[in-house]
Amino acid sequence: MKAEIITVGTEILMGSIVNTNASFLARECAAMGLTSFYQITVGDNEKRLTKLIQEARKRSDILIFSGGLGPTEDDLTKETVAKACGRKLVEDPESRKWIEKLFTGWGRTPTENNWKQALVPEGALVLKNDNGTAPGIILEHEGTHFILLPGPPHELIPLFRDKVKPYLEKLSGTVFHSAMVKVIGIGESQVEDELKDLIDAQTNPTIATYAKPGEVGIRVTASADTEKKAKALVKPVVKEMKRRFGTNVYTTREEVSLEQAVLKLLKKKGMTLSLAESCTGGLLAGRLVNVPGASKVFVSSAVTYSEKAKRQLVGVSGKTLRKYGAVSEECALEMAKGAAKRLHTDCAISVTGFAGPDGGTDKDPVGTVYIGVVIGDKSLCKKRFFNGTREYVRNMAVTAALVHFRELMLSL
Amino acid sequence: MKAEIITVGTEILMGSIVNTNASFLARECAAMGLTSFYQITVGDNEKRLTKLIQEARKRSDILIFSGGLGPTEDDLTKETVAKACGRKLVEDPESRKWIEKLFTGWGRTPTENNWKQALVPEGALVLKNDNGTAPGIILEHEGTHFILLPGPPHELIPLFRDKVKPYLEKLSGTVFHSAMVKVIGIGESQVEDELKDLIDAQTNPTIATYAKPGEVGIRVTASADTEKKAKALVKPVVKEMKRRFGTNVYTTREEVSLEQAVLKLLKKKGMTLSLAESCTGGLLAGRLVNVPGASKVFVSSAVTYSEKAKRQLVGVSGKTLRKYGAVSEECALEMAKGAAKRLHTDCAISVTGFAGPDGGTDKDPVGTVYIGVVIGDKSLCKKRFFNGTREYVRNMAVTAALVHFRELMLSL
Repeated sequence: MKAEIITVGTEILMGSIVNTNASFLARECAAMGLTSFYQITVGDNEKRLTKLIQEARKRSDILIFSGGLGPTEDDLTKETVAKACGRKLVEDPESRKWIEKLFTGWGRTPTENNWKQALVPEGALVLKNDNGTAPGIILEHEGTHFILLPGPPHELIPLFRDKVKPYLEKLSGTVFHSAMVKVIGIGESQVEDELKDLIDAQTNPTIATYAKPGEVGIRVTASADTEKKAKALVKPVVKEMKRRFGTNVYTTREEVSLEQAVLKLLKKKGMTLSLAESCTGGLLAGRLVNVPGASKVFVSSAVTYSEKAKRQLVGVSGKTLRKYGAVSEECALEMAKGAAKRLHTDCAISVTGFAGPDGGTDKDPVGTVYIGVVIGDKSLCKKRFFNGTREYVRNMAVTAALVHFRELMLSL
Repeated sequence: MKAEIITVGTEILMGSIVNTNASFLARECAAMGLTSFYQITVGDNEKRLTKLIQEARKRSDILIFSGGLGPTEDDLTKETVAKACGRKLVEDPESRKWIEKLFTGWGRTPTENNWKQALVPEGALVLKNDNGTAPGIILEHEGTHFILLPGPPHELIPLFRDKVKPYLEKLSGTVFHSAMVKVIGIGESQVEDELKDLIDAQTNPTIATYAKPGEVGIRVTASADTEKKAKALVKPVVKEMKRRFGTNVYTTREEVSLEQAVLKLLKKKGMTLSLAESCTGGLLAGRLVNVPGASKVFVSSAVTYSEKAKRQLVGVSGKTLRKYGAVSEECALEMAKGAAKRLHTDCAISVTGFAGPDGGTDKDPVGTVYIGVVIGDKSLCKKRFFNGTREYVRNMAVTAALVHFRELMLSL
């Protein structure tokens, strides 16, 4: 089946926001084996949206819309789709109740506009939106499946995963099962080289690689008539990848992030972690805290951006700072040891470096980062270099810190 | 004039990468007053690309393509556009020389494929690409301007800014000047209400609003035959907006972020800042540190995610934690005061809340965040509520913390 992703919104057309919904939906569709030839963005304009619907219906079986379900007059995706399908809009009592409940919780009174969000095309399947006022809508009309989702990603993503995906699976009579083998410490081209025989021979499951900074994901997707059979097709391929990449594989599940894997490892060993961050300035802590329940093993972090803070919070000696500088192996190790000691944790990670655009020395130019790791009485320091913007260097340093911490953890 | 952005590449269609080129090009086009009705992504497929070119030519004057200029067989944007315009591909000697020079520098020998990148449609304007092997190409054909740019953003962005923008300005005989009035503490609909008269009356400059979480941007764009005249048209409108929104406007420049504005304010007053972050766990520090030179005023942050860390690092009393809990006005204030005292700074911000998915109480459900602010001997605490995922709540809390800190700062 062919799917087409249509994102509606003048704010995308004007470039005020990046269209992450399109990439999320495209990834999900690809993982389900749906073919996709076009992604289209159109403004909040009835005439152009209508024309687009007419064309897209002819070439695709499933049209997934994001955006244009808000309460304002500009929002007209639902109205336009309903009209194109010759359906009336009717009030959905459940949606009305939900809007009422949300507004009561906020202590606000809905205006006439807000009730507009409880209207749905006659005969549509209504998908309750736990994270917002606009429900998702699925409408089948003359063989085309119209799937309407709200624009905010924190509403769209759970709606798609929990409600749209099962619908599409049922529709195709095929069940898809995917594993995501996530590899660290090896670049994308090397990963592809090492998998060349598997990639060349792929039919079912299919294999696709996705590179993101510091990490390569390999999606293995099988289709079958039952979940069990699909899983059985995926399993040996994943096993082979784990054999080839060893401990460079940190998970085989899409939803598990590197920080989650690291926290799980700590939990398993009953150990606690603290951080001392300089150039990453809280980013590493931020990524760890984004894992629900992180507080069980992640105790605290000292963001020691200034030299003063390095001395005060984690006890780096003035001598070390004078002799070696704040960006040095010696400082990184003292930061990590100081964090473990002062924050009373079993383990600690430190990061100090030149993120740019200013700073750096001949020996350690902008992009140089030192990562200190302490686990019990073991410690090490890694020097890394990343070429890119300040933001890029900092993000890569965070990933590298997790990678090196995990390496030492697994070697003990 | 109408512009249409066409991104070519299977990797976008499959969702392996996020289409940041489309948002960059859209923003640039909007700022130049170009109208844009569609953004389209299509795979590396000659038939579908040809069909798209035929349709897009009918409705738009300028077609901007990104991607498909690489050396492999898959890359066929240039070939397809040339064919659609009935032009032969000819070798551009300058491009050949440039490829030769790059490969010599890398110590590699170009293959036959690489020379393909020196071919350009007959009669095209060739834009030298300082950051890669594929030149940009501008081809005018029967009134349509085809602009072909390489896909990697670090090649596309400078090529557009340095070479395409001047071409388009010359084409329209018009120079554009934009200001971006960024407003915090007021929602998008209220901003639009208060600007209704200006928006309704807009001709030159034009006014467009852009909402992102916690912030509304208002772009004011004027066109004229000189930069000076365009600037003079923008100025009074921006002035009027500043009058209406007062201190809710934190900048009128596109490139200035809220964290930059806050750090600038601190620098101006010669004050230093520390943080005590609980549920945001380093995110606030991370945003501040992303501003180059932040270390001049931002001293350090204690990420006190656990209760133990709240006591140890910023001295929250056990009594407060027992009596009011870690998510409370009392705790937020003690965290901020403790950070300022222990980290020896003039100011401090604290954040504590329930980011979810677990936690929360009847009084303070998931999404509740307390923000403590200390400036010298003044302090305050704000209670906020955000409805969404853990990530959303944390990001909104960071923005709110900056907003409330700035409010108190400006009121003194």
